Order: sequence, then C-alpha cells, then structure tokens
Amino acid sequence: MADFGRDISTLLEGQNVPKTEDVLRDIDDRFDITLSKLLELVSIPSISSDPSGKHGIERAAEWLKHELSSMGLAADIIATKGHPVVLARSFTASTGTASTGTLSAGKKPRLLFYGHYDVQPVGDEGAWKHPPFAPDIIEEDGVHRFYGRGTSDSKSQLWTFIEALRAWKNVHGELPAEIIVLLEGEEECGSASLPAFIQAHRHELACDVAFICDAEMWTATQPAITTQLKGLVHERVTIRAPNADLHSGHYGAVAANPIRVLSSILASLHDDKGRVTIHGFYDGVHDIPDTIRQQWQDLSRQPELFADVDLTGGITEEGYAPIEAMWGRPTVDINGITGGNQGPGERSVLPGSATARLSFRLVAGQSPEAIRQQFRSHVERLIPRGCRVEFEGDGGSSAVVLSQDSPYLKAAARGLEKEWQSPAILRGTGGAIPLVEQLGKALQTECVVIGFILPSDAIHAPDEHYDSERLRQGARSWIRIFEEIEAATDFRT
Amino acid sequence: MADFGRDISTLLEGQNVPKTEDVLRDIDDRFDITLSKLLELVSIPSISSDPSGKHGIERAAEWLKHELSSMGLAADIIATKGHPVVLARSFTASTGTASTGTLSAGKKPRLLFYGHYDVQPVGDEGAWKHPPFAPDIIEEDGVHRFYGRGTSDSKSQLWTFIEALRAWKNVHGELPAEIIVLLEGEEECGSASLPAFIQAHRHELACDVAFICDAEMWTATQPAITTQLKGLVHERVTIRAPNADLHSGHYGAVAANPIRVLSSILASLHDDKGRVTIHGFYDGVHDIPDTIRQQWQDLSRQPELFADVDLTGGITEEGYAPIEAMWGRPTVDINGITGGNQGPGERSVLPGSATARLSFRLVAGQSPEAIRQQFRSHVERLIPRGCRVEFEGDGGSSAVVLSQDSPYLKAAARGLEKEWQSPAILRGTGGAIPLVEQLGKALQTECVVIGFILPSDAIHAPDEHYDSERLRQGARSWIRIFEEIEAATDFRT
Repeated sequence: MADFGRDISTLLEGQNVPKTEDVLRDIDDRFDITLSKLLELVSIPSISSDPSGKHGIERAAEWLKHELSSMGLAADIIATKGHPVVLARSFTASTGTASTGTLSAGKKPRLLFYGHYDVQPVGDEGAWKHPPFAPDIIEEDGVHRFYGRGTSDSKSQLWTFIEALRAWKNVHGELPAEIIVLLEGEEECGSASLPAFIQAHRHELACDVAFICDAEMWTATQPAITTQLKGLVHERVTIRAPNADLHSGHYGAVAANPIRVLSSILASLHDDKGRVTIHGFYDGVHDIPDTIRQQWQDLSRQPELFADVDLTGGITEEGYAPIEAMWGRPTVDINGITGGNQGPGERSVLPGSATARLSFRLVAGQSPEAIRQQFRSHVERLIPRGCRVEFEGDGGSSAVVLSQDSPYLKAAARGLEKEWQSPAILRGTGGAIPLVEQLGKALQTECVVIGFILPSDAIHAPDEHYDSERLRQGARSWIRIFEEIEAATDFRT
Repeated sequence: MADFGRDISTLLEGQNVPKTEDVLRDIDDRFDITLSKLLELVSIPSISSDPSGKHGIERAAEWLKHELSSMGLAADIIATKGHPVVLARSFTASTGTASTGTLSAGKKPRLLFYGHYDVQPVGDEGAWKHPPFAPDIIEEDGVHRFYGRGTSDSKSQLWTFIEALRAWKNVHGELPAEIIVLLEGEEECGSASLPAFIQAHRHELACDVAFICDAEMWTATQPAITTQLKGLVHERVTIRAPNADLHSGHYGAVAANPIRVLSSILASLHDDKGRVTIHGFYDGVHDIPDTIRQQWQDLSRQPELFADVDLTGGITEEGYAPIEAMWGRPTVDINGITGGNQGPGERSVLPGSATARLSFRLVAGQSPEAIRQQFRSHVERLIPRGCRVEFEGDGGSSAVVLSQDSPYLKAAARGLEKEWQSPAILRGTGGAIPLVEQLGKALQTECVVIGFILPSDAIHAPDEHYDSERLRQGARSWIRIFEEIEAATDFRT
C-alpha cells in the first residue's frame, strides 16, 4: 500500500498517478497509529498560561518537531519571549515564491498550516470525570470518544493536517505543495509573542494562503469555514481596600469591602438591554451588514445551533438574534472572580482585596488598546475614596472579517463538501485566533479558517473531548482540499 | 512560695490569710511557665470550621483537660454533634446551689468561666510572615509579642483565667469560689452544638455568674466590659447557570453568566445611604437608646478608637457615627466570593456557577431565622429564569444586651480598674459570642463579658498576635476580680 519513495517520474507517467482515493485509503489504513499518536500528544500537559505548564510546553514542542522531521520537513523549535513556535518547511528559504491569495495554473502554491499545541488550564480538577492528561478511547452511544484537555482545542486540529500531509507524501512521494507548518504554543494565553515572531520570520512565512485550523464545524455532519472572528482583550482588575484583612464583625459596618466595590463595578457594566455601558465602547462599531445578517439569520433557524446550550435566562443584547450577538456584537465577559474566604469553612473576614478577570470580545472597528483604556476609566470612576485599583493585562487582538470570495476559500469549500457530503457553511465565531489578524496585518496573507471541533466538545471546560471519526474525516478533508487546489492550479501540466 | 495544700483552718486564723498581693506575685513568678504553656497550646492547629482541623481540635481538648485536671478540677471532654466541649468543675453535681446574678454575704458563689479553644482557618498562608502554628517570643518595639492563629482569639483569653485560678489555689490552697470551666470547640464555626449541650448539661452549668472571656480591651492600657453583642448568621449562596462551564468566546454574548448574576445581587443589598435593602431586614429593630448613644459617642471621641483602621471610603450607614454602626446597627457583610477562573493564567471560561459567603450581624429585635429567610427571598427574586440558586447555612445567634447594673459586672469593673489603673469602659461589639445568648436563654444566667485582646491583634487575619504583658495583666485582672467578689460576698465571716 505504501507508495513512499516512489520516484516522481513514475508519477508523471499518467496511468500510474495515484488517485485521491489512494490517499484517503492511506489515512483509513493507518488510522489506529494516527489516533494513538494523537493520544500521546494529548497526554503531554502543555498548559501555556500557567508556569506549571512550562515543561509540558517544551515536551510537546519536541514531540511535534520529531513528528514533522520524520515526514521530511525541516523542523525547528524557535524560542520567543514566551513559549516556542514549532516551524517546519518543505523547502529552503531561497526557493519558491509566494503571491498571496491567487491560484495560478502552472504554479505550485505555497500553503501555510497553522495550529496551536498549547492547551487551557485544567480548572477545577474535581469537576472532571475523566483524567485531563491520560486519554483512553471510550465507546459512548456508538461514538469512539476520548477525553482530555486539548483533545478538541486544539491538538486534534493540528493532527488532521499533519496526518493528511503525511498520507499525501506516503502515496505521492511528495507533498501536495510547498508547505509551511506553524505550530504556536501561546494561543490560549493571548499569543503575546506572535507579532514579533511573524515580523522576524516574515520571509520564511510568506505563502499563498494560510490555512488556520482552529475552528468549529457547524454540526457533527456539516462542515464550516469561518469568515468572521472577534478580537480579544484579557484584563484583570483588583480592588484593594485601605486595610488588609479585618474581622468583619468588628469593621464590616464601617470599613470598605472590596468585594462589595467589585460587585457594584461588575453590575454596572451592562444596562437592562444587555448593552455595555462603558463610555466609548461602541465607537467605530458598524451594525452588521444586511447580507451577513441574512446569512446568519438563515443559519439560526437550524435547530442544531443551540442544541447543546441552554440559553434560558441568557443575556443576548436587545435587538439582536443570539447568533448575531455571538458573532457580530462586542461583549464584556466576566471569566473569574476571587476575594476573601475561599472556604471550606466560614471565616468572618472583611477582605483586603478582591479580583475579577474579564475578557472583551471585539468586532471590526474596535481597538484592543482603546477598549482596555475605556474599561479602566470606567472602573476608576467607580472606586471609592481610600480604595485603590490595580489593572493587569496588555496586548490583545482585533476582529477580522475575511473575504468570502477568495479562490482558496472556494476550493476549501468544495473539498469539504465532497468529504462530508454536505455544503460548507460560511460562519462567524465569538472566538479569537490572534494569528489571523497578525498574518493579515504583517504579510497580507490570505487566511482560510477551517476546523473540525464542535461546541459540544466541552472546549475550555472539564471533560473536554473529541471523537475518532471526526479526526479521520478531518484528515480526509484536507486531502479533498489538496485535490481541489491541485485541480485549480494544475501545476503538473 | 507555693501555698498549695495549706489547710483551710490555717486560712481562717486571720493574720496568716494570704493577701491578694501574694497571689499576684505567684502569677508573676510563674510567668515563664505560663507563657510557654500557652505557646504549646497555640501550636496545636485546632481549626474548627475545616475538616482538616479535626485532629487539632481533639489534641487541644485533651491538652486542656490535662491542664484542668492538674489543678484538681474534675475535667471531662464531652462529645457533641460537632466538636467536643471541655467541662471542668471544682464540686460534685449534688453540692452547692446557684442563684444567678446575686452576690450574697456568707454564700460562696459559683462562677462559670467560658473560653473557646478552636481557632479560625489560616486563610491565605502566603500572606503570613510568621508561621501560624509555631509561635516564638519576639521583641518588637519593647513588646514581647508572639504570632500565631489563635494567639489572640482566643487561646490567650482562656489561659488568663486558668492561670489565675491556678495561682489562687497555689496561694490559698483552694479556689476562690465554686468553679465551672467551659471551653468550647466550635465558636469560630457558629457554635451549632451549643444549645443542645447547654440544655443537656443545664444542671451542671447552673451558676451565679458566667464570665465570658472572649472580648476586647478598649486600648492596650484601658480595660473594658462588653455589654452589647451582635447576633451572627452565616450564609452561603451559589448561583448555577443552566449550563456547566462554557467557552466564553462562543457563548459569553448569549448565555447566563453566574458571576454577573451574583454581582448584581450583591450590589443590590445596599442602597446609596448604606442601608440594607432586604425587605423586612429592619423589622423589630429599635433605634439605639439615647443613654447608650451618649456613652458611645463619648467613647468615639477617643482618638485610639480607629487608630489601627483606615475608614476612608468606608460604608457607615448614613445618620450614624461609625461606633454606632459597629455596635448598634445590623449589617450584611460579604466575606468571600469565588467563581470561574481562579488563575494564575487567563481562561476564557463562562463559568457554570459562582458562590458568595455572607454574614449578617444582628441587633436586638432580629431573629437569625427570619433574616436568613428574608435574604433568601431577596435573592430568589433576582435569579434570572433558567438559573438556579442554592443556599447553605443554618442556625445563628441573636444579639444580646446585658444589664449594666449587675453586681458581678460592678465587681469586675472595680477589679479591672485596680489592675490597669484605669476605669473599665462599658462597650459594645460587632462580634458575636453565641454562648452569651444561649446561657441567658436556657439558664437565665447573668453574663459578664471581659477580655484582653485588641483590634490590632490581627484577629481572623494573617499574622494574628498577642503579647506577654497583656497575658500577665489579664491573669492578674482575674485575681483582682476574685478579690472584689470575695469582699462583696465575704463568705468566710
């Protein structure tokens, strides 16, 4: 079965040229190994936002470098100020050219594949029924599922294109195009090192298109391409009272309580229509264009959309459908709060400080730095005399709106439809992929955002999971997409 | 020096009767042992509100039983549904009588001494500069200080009367009265077992007066007797969203956020005058009587009152001086809050739940159960459809207002003044001592609340501390009080 090592001249003889079906079969035949390797990767706790994850980050980067090298790519681990990037290429820097966004007959395109190997923290370990870093395959309702932090977000994702590239090379003896693989280790903590990395390596990263594989399908059977991404700003705010912890029996009636101050501030962030009250927050935000609004409203009629989430008591901004608010309206989210007694027993304490962690999801027209400053001004106005406020956070990403007319996007849509037997939805997302903004900004690279995860995978939550069938079809999807790109470029003729 | 074992007939000869000065000297002479024993007790981590403290509770109870037995008291550890009570007596159940609140010539009175041997949890251990359970004597600014959880609240307190009783017996060969020592192990977690204990042991506890040693001095040089105590209700409230943890990028715009719900509820508990908005909260509350108000306002002119606390940005209810709010107005305090990401890294999570811990400090006229129900109703009205609320908490104590005219209180005030060379202040407190309410309710026992700790001791906070001079003078104070009681009863004549 393995066609590895077949001489390129053989391929050009015509009747012996392997067909797409052969590559798909290679994926299916090797699938047990593919899956067990992914579980190996998942078992490495590569948590990026917590110092305790440093060793896991390093191990995951080494592991991936080894895998990419074994496919004949020139793979390196490149240090950044934060976590390292794994960068692999099928060509040397001096060869080839890239002209972003075009598909030209006779020209072998250069494709960049992006994934991230870092994962979210475990959170409350007691809330997991399955161990976060020791995945097994479990059959549930006819699905072969595996649980673990990063199974879905995003180790399965990067594994789909790595295994697709391996299969293509196994069968064809060469890769489907000039290939760049860029695997980030900081996606879950804000991608702070990414702009400098892209700037420093812009010549090695130049490509015709970047496939960003960190997005969702529409449903378990219907593929999607994401064309709108929100920006993201993380911010931590700590209120400090004039005193350290005090006995609340003695001073509760008279001294400032930072939890009370913080609660009032958080309660002040929205009005009763669900709009954000921060002064200037909506400056520059245009309403969702009618054509996009129509697409999204059509999608929102599908019963699957919120099948896994209960929106009772939800907070959708007045005047918008939930799908519009999710994809097209900026938000302030409170992700965490901590102050005073954390138990288990009761403690009559008037705490010295209280902290909230917030994130802002931005749409086109909003700048991360302006939003951060507006929020800080809003908070500062509400701090009582005597209390102090501390803010922590910097950077962030802007929203991205991608063209729906890119030829690569259209090729990808055709490929996805062939594999899944169902047309690819063009969708938005409330999630952020800082790279998309960075690549667009620094290299004017065309980006196509594809992925095979689902909201029901419990991403960022306890018992995050994925299933083997989506992994298999995810990998096969790339083969279909390569076939479509090859057909469009037809560089062998 | 030791007069232990001296026959009572010798005492009655007149010129050989030891003087108070002899007993005071016994305290001074034995002080090194007294102090090192207290540090031994402090080193036992008897945390009552946390299951991890169970072993420490048991060890502290055994240790105290041994000490009380060594003084010739009949000491027992009595199990309750919660933590055990250490009960010691100088007489058998069938002897003696008690007639609460009176001081009659010729009748040997029966005195009960109350202390608690349990301590608050450590809280944030990183915030302690000194180990919480390994005290050393440190000289700071001429004061011999020792740090540790429970040094001030309340192991030093019970040690003052135990060492005073020991000294009296050493010198006089007998105790100054019929003595009951009651040491509780649940004061810091709400004294839930106390009502049943008092009911079951009411005959053994019958006494003329109960000295409750769990209160503050006015300043480091001026003693105080506490005549008003607030009641206390602890309550935990958890808001649950319809979903478990979700990715906040995807669902932050649409799904309920329990932290946001909780913040709004907490922010709703007070109006802009600092009054509690819970419906019915002030039912039955009478305004502070003019005479008490005058006493407190006089006290509040003393600059020492808030020397250790910064009230800038404070929350004193409009229309009241801080001292009136602390001692005479009911409050709602937020002691802790937890929800979503607790760090250290950022996590884009929309949490499934958020929890706050509150305490209510009650004044006369408020019932713990009514306040708890009113709070729950208030919260329930603010829970959005789809979210759920869970409450945790029961029991609690009512406020107590003690008579300022009791002859035992007057004797205590004279004794304190002699030791400290400064009149005893009659004060209120925002703190609660459930026993005072329980003894009053079940046995109609007269209570006198005295203590030698200070707000600046960092009680309930990191680096709680105490100093040796107050321990020495605290023990000596009891000798002076016994002398005053003896003079008033003069039971030897």
